[in-house]
Amino acid sequence: MAMAFANKVGILGGGQLARMLALKGHELGLEVHILSQHSSDPAAQVTRHWHQGDPNQISHLQKWAQGLDYLTFESEFYSGELLAQLQKKASVKIFPSPEAMKTLQDRVSQKILLAEHKINTSPFMAVNNAEDLQAAAREFKNKFVLKKRQGGYDGNGTFVVASLGQLKSLPSQLSISPNEFMAEAFVRFKRECAIIMARNSSGEILHFPLVVTEQKDNRCDYVYGPVRHPALNKLINKLAIFLEDIQYVGSIGFEFFDTGRELIVNEVAPRVHNTGHYSLEALNVDQFSLHWRAGLGMDFFEVKAFSKAFVMTNLIGSNSQAPQLPETLQGHLHWYGKQENRLGRKMGHVTYVGHQTTSLIKLALQERKKFINLK
Amino acid sequence: MAMAFANKVGILGGGQLARMLALKGHELGLEVHILSQHSSDPAAQVTRHWHQGDPNQISHLQKWAQGLDYLTFESEFYSGELLAQLQKKASVKIFPSPEAMKTLQDRVSQKILLAEHKINTSPFMAVNNAEDLQAAAREFKNKFVLKKRQGGYDGNGTFVVASLGQLKSLPSQLSISPNEFMAEAFVRFKRECAIIMARNSSGEILHFPLVVTEQKDNRCDYVYGPVRHPALNKLINKLAIFLEDIQYVGSIGFEFFDTGRELIVNEVAPRVHNTGHYSLEALNVDQFSLHWRAGLGMDFFEVKAFSKAFVMTNLIGSNSQAPQLPETLQGHLHWYGKQENRLGRKMGHVTYVGHQTTSLIKLALQERKKFINLK
Repeated sequence: MAMAFANKVGILGGGQLARMLALKGHELGLEVHILSQHSSDPAAQVTRHWHQGDPNQISHLQKWAQGLDYLTFESEFYSGELLAQLQKKASVKIFPSPEAMKTLQDRVSQKILLAEHKINTSPFMAVNNAEDLQAAAREFKNKFVLKKRQGGYDGNGTFVVASLGQLKSLPSQLSISPNEFMAEAFVRFKRECAIIMARNSSGEILHFPLVVTEQKDNRCDYVYGPVRHPALNKLINKLAIFLEDIQYVGSIGFEFFDTGRELIVNEVAPRVHNTGHYSLEALNVDQFSLHWRAGLGMDFFEVKAFSKAFVMTNLIGSNSQAPQLPETLQGHLHWYGKQENRLGRKMGHVTYVGHQTTSLIKLALQERKKFINLK
Repeated sequence: MAMAFANKVGILGGGQLARMLALKGHELGLEVHILSQHSSDPAAQVTRHWHQGDPNQISHLQKWAQGLDYLTFESEFYSGELLAQLQKKASVKIFPSPEAMKTLQDRVSQKILLAEHKINTSPFMAVNNAEDLQAAAREFKNKFVLKKRQGGYDGNGTFVVASLGQLKSLPSQLSISPNEFMAEAFVRFKRECAIIMARNSSGEILHFPLVVTEQKDNRCDYVYGPVRHPALNKLINKLAIFLEDIQYVGSIGFEFFDTGRELIVNEVAPRVHNTGHYSLEALNVDQFSLHWRAGLGMDFFEVKAFSKAFVMTNLIGSNSQAPQLPETLQGHLHWYGKQENRLGRKMGHVTYVGHQTTSLIKLALQERKKFINLK
């Protein structure tokens, strides 16, 4: 069976994930259409076909999707409801499906689905009012994490409750309304890990190596790998069945707490993910190309690493001054083309491949210090 | 020393080389401006900043170059004269320099320069009129290659003279005018090879591995490597001095005849080159990123191969029907997004990395057969 070239594909969103999806889409010869709010968005710079619009308005979505063959998104927090409507009205193929997105974008239905698949995840309760908050405090012995069910990222929408005092001050900080929050037991872990998996429309499934993600200020600071874990193989098998059951199509990121004996799923991101950027240099296939291959029905092949070790450091704004890069840089730079630097903003990343993780991390962190107005 | 991000860079030309330069420019966060004739050009698809214009009109060049920090080109056959004028009038930094380009775009001045550096190249004579043609026939014993001094590519502008009969029919086919043609002795070779080198603005020089280029119908059919050659090290040293002497900045392609004992320079292409496309997957740095690094004054680092063997196959139009790609493809596809397929047109390429050249070539040629309307 053969496929035509020159498929018209759409990406909802204008950030760095959309930008890297667009660049890898171009490599495959796809005609890449971006829908985002501002002409200065990172993804708006890298294609002839940028469209201004609000991804949360069905009229904008419908107008934009006319004539597109495939549509995907860079964030799971667009409205699954609107995308399901669009799927019915337009002939565009949306991947991952709006149904899978709807289930996964709500942390409660996500966790219920994981539990149904006997995949380890922390105990949780929906928190719809002040009484639920008290119930969670009793259940989790005054130590738990309160999270927004939808839209949270990089620590935004996450509140750690570690004492009765913190618990008492919460209601004045937050107005808790139905379906907005959930409480999760606090998990003691040794390190945080992550993995990228992918499933294509013919049902083939593959996974990248397991990586460690180091966090700082609730953000991914750097990633290294590959690492081993005794619980990985069994978990991969369960996750594969999970992906098959929801008929997932595309790349997907899983974040884990590593307790030593177990890997406990912390979050599921139904899209390309920061912890998979290293694949652009370190593997024979990157997560962005894989996402397109999956959605367009191209076959998968064996994933191979080009080297024994890799490290990916994020370049994050340390203030609002213009960043500068060092002239000497051994790492492979990816700069997202954001117009303004801001404290905490992901501005770019750098990848290193080599023989040995420890020395590679040392090099990567040393080189990062040479960037100005970034951390 | 540190450099600012968000440099505005221009690429003259809209073909696949400009497209791949643009994609790797985006990766580095450069603001990429393209000047080409048609909005359907491959490079016009992959940036927000496409400008319609004629690269051979100084007024178009000047208008376009206003506000650009750096300018480069995908073909050495734009007017070096016009670029030299532009360099004087605009503050844009042009790399490689218009002077180097002028010398290298004329095969006669190119060969004189190679000879001055004692770099092996085939004996040659300028052919300005019918008498020169007779002189060449005497000198090269009725067997030689008549080539256009400027603008030739893929066998266009090249005429092989192998008998007195062919020689006699030439003047009726061609109107020979001054500075238009040159004659080269016919070189017997075992295979054709090529190498990419690069020099940055601080004078660092590096080279990629030597590759074999297999030709069909006067076009590069496929490339594989790395290969060794007893004459390579000495030649690299001479070519490095050559690049230093002309203060070359950027990636550059050299094509060789391999006679077994010697590598004889056949052509010099002062730009990124088809025989270096494999570097996108097979090396730790690709020729396109390297071209930008060189021009922007970023330091070089050691070139490393990710694997023991690599193959790059060109996908060339076999007719004017719409091409189709196979669903199963183990190679890494690059499709140039050209609107029309044509006999002999370079439409895309596929790269393979692995352990062993022979089996990799077999796989690559097998997979290429599965593309429809391509060869």
